[in-house]
Amino acid sequence: MKGVVYVSEGCFRLGDRERPAVVEAGDAVVRVTLSSICASDLHIREGSVPRAVPGITVGHEFVGVVEEVGPGVGDLRPGDRVAANVETFCGECFYCRRGYVNNCTHPLGGWALGCRIDGCQTELVRVPFADNCLTPIPDHVTDEQALFTGDILSTGYWAADISDISEGDNVVVIGAGPTGLCCAMCARLRSPARIVMLEVSPWRRTFALEHGIADVCIDPSSEDAESIVRGMTDGRGADVVMEVAGGEDTFETAWRIARPNATVCVVAMYPVPQVLPLPDMYGKNLTFRTGGVDASHCSEIMGLISDGVLDPSVLITHRFTLDRIMEAYDLFASRADGVMKVAVSVPRPDAEN
Amino acid sequence: MKGVVYVSEGCFRLGDRERPAVVEAGDAVVRVTLSSICASDLHIREGSVPRAVPGITVGHEFVGVVEEVGPGVGDLRPGDRVAANVETFCGECFYCRRGYVNNCTHPLGGWALGCRIDGCQTELVRVPFADNCLTPIPDHVTDEQALFTGDILSTGYWAADISDISEGDNVVVIGAGPTGLCCAMCARLRSPARIVMLEVSPWRRTFALEHGIADVCIDPSSEDAESIVRGMTDGRGADVVMEVAGGEDTFETAWRIARPNATVCVVAMYPVPQVLPLPDMYGKNLTFRTGGVDASHCSEIMGLISDGVLDPSVLITHRFTLDRIMEAYDLFASRADGVMKVAVSVPRPDAEN
Amino acid sequence: MKGVVYVSEGCFRLGDRERPAVVEAGDAVVRVTLSSICASDLHIREGSVPRAVPGITVGHEFVGVVEEVGPGVGDLRPGDRVAANVETFCGECFYCRRGYVNNCTHPLGGWALGCRIDGCQTELVRVPFADNCLTPIPDHVTDEQALFTGDILSTGYWAADISDISEGDNVVVIGAGPTGLCCAMCARLRSPARIVMLEVSPWRRTFALEHGIADVCIDPSSEDAESIVRGMTDGRGADVVMEVAGGEDTFETAWRIARPNATVCVVAMYPVPQVLPLPDMYGKNLTFRTGGVDASHCSEIMGLISDGVLDPSVLITHRFTLDRIMEAYDLFASRADGVMKVAVSVPRPDAEN
Amino acid sequence: MKGVVYVSEGCFRLGDRERPAVVEAGDAVVRVTLSSICASDLHIREGSVPRAVPGITVGHEFVGVVEEVGPGVGDLRPGDRVAANVETFCGECFYCRRGYVNNCTHPLGGWALGCRIDGCQTELVRVPFADNCLTPIPDHVTDEQALFTGDILSTGYWAADISDISEGDNVVVIGAGPTGLCCAMCARLRSPARIVMLEVSPWRRTFALEHGIADVCIDPSSEDAESIVRGMTDGRGADVVMEVAGGEDTFETAWRIARPNATVCVVAMYPVPQVLPLPDMYGKNLTFRTGGVDASHCSEIMGLISDGVLDPSVLITHRFTLDRIMEAYDLFASRADGVMKVAVSVPRPDAEN
Repeated sequence: MKGVVYVSEGCFRLGDRERPAVVEAGDAVVRVTLSSICASDLHIREGSVPRAVPGITVGHEFVGVVEEVGPGVGDLRPGDRVAANVETFCGECFYCRRGYVNNCTHPLGGWALGCRIDGCQTELVRVPFADNCLTPIPDHVTDEQALFTGDILSTGYWAADISDISEGDNVVVIGAGPTGLCCAMCARLRSPARIVMLEVSPWRRTFALEHGIADVCIDPSSEDAESIVRGMTDGRGADVVMEVAGGEDTFETAWRIARPNATVCVVAMYPVPQVLPLPDMYGKNLTFRTGGVDASHCSEIMGLISDGVLDPSVLITHRFTLDRIMEAYDLFASRADGVMKVAVSVPRPDAEN
Repeated sequence: MKGVVYVSEGCFRLGDRERPAVVEAGDAVVRVTLSSICASDLHIREGSVPRAVPGITVGHEFVGVVEEVGPGVGDLRPGDRVAANVETFCGECFYCRRGYVNNCTHPLGGWALGCRIDGCQTELVRVPFADNCLTPIPDHVTDEQALFTGDILSTGYWAADISDISEGDNVVVIGAGPTGLCCAMCARLRSPARIVMLEVSPWRRTFALEHGIADVCIDPSSEDAESIVRGMTDGRGADVVMEVAGGEDTFETAWRIARPNATVCVVAMYPVPQVLPLPDMYGKNLTFRTGGVDASHCSEIMGLISDGVLDPSVLITHRFTLDRIMEAYDLFASRADGVMKVAVSVPRPDAEN
Repeated sequence: MKGVVYVSEGCFRLGDRERPAVVEAGDAVVRVTLSSICASDLHIREGSVPRAVPGITVGHEFVGVVEEVGPGVGDLRPGDRVAANVETFCGECFYCRRGYVNNCTHPLGGWALGCRIDGCQTELVRVPFADNCLTPIPDHVTDEQALFTGDILSTGYWAADISDISEGDNVVVIGAGPTGLCCAMCARLRSPARIVMLEVSPWRRTFALEHGIADVCIDPSSEDAESIVRGMTDGRGADVVMEVAGGEDTFETAWRIARPNATVCVVAMYPVPQVLPLPDMYGKNLTFRTGGVDASHCSEIMGLISDGVLDPSVLITHRFTLDRIMEAYDLFASRADGVMKVAVSVPRPDAEN
Repeated sequence: MKGVVYVSEGCFRLGDRERPAVVEAGDAVVRVTLSSICASDLHIREGSVPRAVPGITVGHEFVGVVEEVGPGVGDLRPGDRVAANVETFCGECFYCRRGYVNNCTHPLGGWALGCRIDGCQTELVRVPFADNCLTPIPDHVTDEQALFTGDILSTGYWAADISDISEGDNVVVIGAGPTGLCCAMCARLRSPARIVMLEVSPWRRTFALEHGIADVCIDPSSEDAESIVRGMTDGRGADVVMEVAGGEDTFETAWRIARPNATVCVVAMYPVPQVLPLPDMYGKNLTFRTGGVDASHCSEIMGLISDGVLDPSVLITHRFTLDRIMEAYDLFASRADGVMKVAVSVPRPDAEN
C-alpha cells in the first residue's frame, strides 16, 4: 500500500508501506477512508518537530473503517466507522484520569500517530488504545463531517472549554485559519455576544464572515484592532481572547486586547519565547491558558455533529485522492486558491492489497 | 492628629494631619485602633508606585471603630468595630458585579486608601463605600486577629481561590514572607497533600515550619527545589504553584516546578518583564493566573477567623504605638529581628482630638 | 393616576391611585411605559399568595423612565429608560452577597413590588434599591424587547444556569407557557442537542415550534413522552429536565423522564406537596433544584438582548393600553385567542397627572 | 476455601466455596487479606436487596493481594496490594465517561461484588475490570487504613464533593454511623466553620466528638436540632445538610434545618417514599442531591490516606478472623459494645487451599 513517508528534514514522499497489524491487545487496524493534512504535518516536514521519527508514515487526521481489533478491545468491531483521535492515551495514568490526555505517560501516549509511529496518510493504520482513541461515527454523519473530530475540532472544543466563556461575552479569536475557525465555532456554542476575528488574509476574513463563523473580522495589518474592540465593549476590551495565530506580535495583541480579569487562551505555537510584561499588567489579573489540545472529548464532539449543532465539513475546500496527495500538500502549504482544509479520500481497493 | 505622610520619593514623615470628615453619602469615618505596615507602603516610599499622591497619609491595613457614617450607609453604625478593605469599590460597575473589585471603574475604586487618598497610619480615616469596604468584627475576634482581613489575607484567600487547588494536591509556595504565608494558610483550607515553601531566609523557613504553615521548606539558594518536588510527586512536579517572591528567577522556578496542566498563580510583583518560553512548554498546558488581589471576600474571611478556622494573628511579631511608627518602618524594611508583620496601636485619645 | 388594585380575594379593580414619592435614599420613582401581566398576578387575585397585601397596586413586570431618584442612588438619572426586577434586594445581606436575592433579608427584599408594596400596573411606581433593581435599557432596545428582563426571562436564565446544561445535552422542558418558553430560550444558549417540550395545548406546541424555541413538542396527554425521550437518547432519558408546568403528575414525569445523574430543575409552583420515591430511585442519583428565581442577572440578560442573542419580544401576542387592562386580564386568564403574553402601554400624560 | 454465602432471605452461612479464576481478559483474582461488613450486607440478608442473587459469596469491602491477572489488565501484577471498589465499571460507557460509575451500563457494572457475583468475605475473589476497580496500596499504608477506600469512604468523598461545601460553611450531618462519619471526615477537608452531627446513640455521639470528626453533636430525640443550628447561624440554618440516617423523619429534618439556597445531600436509603412539600418551600430554593455513591475517586482517596490527610482506620473498633466472621456479623448487626466497623482478617494459608 502507498503512504506519505517522512524521509528526512524537508522531504515527504509517497512510497510503499508495510501493511500494519494488531500488536497490542488494545490495538485496532483501521482502513482509512478519508484523511486530511494538518499544519503539524508541515512542521514535521520543516524539521521543527524534534520528536518526529524519520521513516514513519505521517498524518493524524482521519476517519475510516475498523478492519481488525485486538483481544483487549471492548466495543469496537470490524466494519465500524470511526474517527481517530490525534492523541493516543492509556486512559489510566495520572494525567489521563484527569482528562489531560496530551500528557499521558504511556510511551505511546500523546501525539504519536504520524509523528512517532505510522500515521494515516495511507490505506491502513494501526491505532493503539483503540477504545479510547477511535470514536464511532453514526450512520447519518458523513466522513467529511466527522473528519476533524479528533484534531482541529478537538482543539477548538478544548480551547473553548478552558476559555471561561460566558453567555454574552465578547470573544476575540486571533487567526482565521482552520484551527481558529474551529475555536470560533466552538466558542459560538456558548452564546457570546459576538465573535471578532483578527486575520490578515482577506479571503480568510471573507470565509469566516460568509460562513457565519465570525460576526466581525478585523485586518490587524491595516486596522487598530485594540481600539475597535474597545469601541465594542464600553472601552473595556475582550472578555476572552483565543490566540491561534502564533505571529510575531499576536501574543502581545492578545493580552493588550483583553479586558482586566479576562482569559487569554494561547492555542498557537510560537517559534520564539514570548515576553510577559508583568510589571505593566499588574492588577490586570489576566488568566493565561497555554498549550496544546487535550483531545478527550471526541465522543461529545461527535454527538454535537450528529445532532446538527456543529458542522465542520464547511472547512473542506479541496478534495483529492490518495495518489494525488502530494499535490494536496503543495496546495495546503501554499495557502493558495482559497484552501482551508483538504480532504484526501482513499478508494476502496476491492481486489488487491 | 498625627499621621505618616508621603512627603516625596524616599521620604515618609510622621506629621500633623487634618481630621477627616464624611464627604459622600456612602462614606464612613473610622477611628483606627490598630494598623500595620505593608510592603506596598515601602514601594510607595521608594517611588515605585506612580499613582501614589505625595502629601497623603499612607497605610491601608487596619481595624478600627466607626465614628461617623454618611446618610447612604446601610447597616454600619458609630461604635461598630470594623476591618478595612485595601480596595474601595462601588459594587455596581461591570467589574464589581463580577467580584473583580480591583478594577472597579469608579475614580475611588481599587487601591485608593493610603495611595491616592488619605490612609490609615493615623487616628481617623475616611473610608468611601463604607458598606462594601468595612467588615464588622465579631466581639470575640481581637483586633490582632482581624488586622489582615482586608489586605494580605485577602490576597492569600483570593490566590488560593483562583489556584484550582484540589484535595490531595502538592502545592508549592515560593516566598515565605507575610503574603506567602497567607497564601499557604489559605491553600491549607483546601486540604492539599502537602505545602512546600521555597524561601532563602532561614528564619522565615523556621517560622513557616514552626507554625505549621508549611509541611516542607526548601532553600532554593542551596537545594535543587525542582528535583526535590519531583521526588515527592512521582516525578511529575507540583499540582499548584503560588509565586509570591518576585525574585530574579522565581518566575522561571514557578513554571519549571509545575507539572503539566498545573496552575501557576503569580501573586508577586516584578521589577521587570518575564519571559514565557512557550515553544519549550508547548503541550505542558499550564494555566497562569496573574496579578493583584480582588479583595471581595472579606466577610467570608472574617467568618473563618470568627469560627477559629484561620488565625492570622500569628504573623504579628512586633508591636508599636503610633508615636513610634517610624521605628516600626525601620524594623519592617530591614527584615531584622525576625520581623514578619508589625502591629501599630493607636491609643484612644480620651480628652482631645 | 389609575392603577389595578388588589381589593380582596377574587377582586382586582382599576381605580385611582396616589402618586408615589421617593421615601428612602435608594429609591427611584419610575414612570411606567409598558407593563405585563404575570401568572403570579392571577395567583394574587385567587388569594393563593398569602403575603399579598389587599389595597396595593399590583404588577411587577415593566419597563419605564426614571422620574426621580433619592440621594443614595448612584448612576441612574431622571430620563433613563429602565427595566425593573421582580425582586427588590439590598445587595448587602448574606443572601444578596451570594446572588440569592430572592431571600434578601431586608423587609423589602424578595418579591415585594405588586405584592407587598405598590406595583407597576399604573403610571408611576416607587422602586426601592433602585441601583440594584433597575437595569438601564440601551437606546436600540425597544420596550417590548426589554419588558420581560426582570421576571420571566430572569426565571428562564436562572433556571438554565442552575440546570447544569452541557453542550449536546437533551433538555426536556415541561410546559410551553411563557415561563417554559423563557426557560427553553435560555437553555438554547448552552447549545443542547435538542430541546423537547411537553405541552398539552396544541397552539402552545405550535408556537414553540414555529418560533424555533422547541425542536420537538410532545403532547403528554396522548403520547408516551417517556418512551419518546428514551428513543432519542439511546434509552437513557433526558440529561436535564426543567419542570415549569406544575400539573398533577408533571413532577413525576420530570423525574421519570430524566436519565440517571440528571438535573431536574423545578421551576413550577404546586398546589400540593409532591412525593419523592427515594427507595425506587436509589442509585439514580438525581439532582433536584427547587424554587423561585434569584433575579440577580438582569444586566447580563439586557446585554444578551442588546447584542441580539435573545429576543423575548416574540412572546407578546396581544397589546392593550392601561385603560383597557382589565380586558387584558380577562384574556390572559382565559388563555384564549392564542395569548402568550400581553403588553400594556401607558400613554404619556402630557399635561396632567 | 471458606466464605459467607447468601443462602436465602434471612440466612447467611460460612460454607465451602469454589476457588475463583480469571474469566474475562480484564479480570484479576485477588487474595483477600482484610475485609469488613457493611450495612448493605445486612440489607441483603434481610432480603431487601432484590437484585442480590442467592448462592453467592457476599462482601464488597476489602483489601488484598493480586494473585492472577487476565491478559487485558494493564499495570497490576501478582503480588500488588490493592483496595477494591464496591462498584465495578467498564470505564467506557456514557455514564463511566462522566464519572457516574454507579450507573455503568455493562452487565457487571455498578454494585455487583457480593451482590450479583461472588464477593470478598472469603479467601479469593475475582474482580472484573481490575484496572478500574482495584487501587494499588502504597507500602506505608496499612490494610486497616486502606480498607474503606472503595465503599464507605468513597461514599463520604462523593457526598462531600456533590454537596457544594465552601470554606466556612456550617455543615450538618444526620447520622453518626460509619457512613455518616466518613461523610463528616470528607466534609472536613473543605474547611467548614463547623460540623454538627445529629445522632440518637450516645456512644456514637461520643465517638464522633472524641475523634474530632464532629465539632458539635445533637441528640435529636431530646434536643431541638433546628433551633440549635439556627442559633449557630444567625437564624439562617445549615449551609449544607448531609442526610445519612434514613430514619422516619430525618428527611424532613434535613430540609427544615437547611437555610435557603442550601444543598441537601441525601445519602441515606429509605424504606418508604418521602414527601417534598414544595408549596411550603417555594422560594427556599433548595438543591437536593440524591442517591448512592459514584465510587470513581479511589485513587484520590488513597492519595489522601497515603499523605496522612485522611485516616479512616479509626472506625475499626473490633477485629476478627474469617473463621469467626459470623460472630462479627452478630456484633455488627446488634450495634452492641460500641461497634463501629469490624475488620475481618484472612490468615495466609501457607500449605493448603
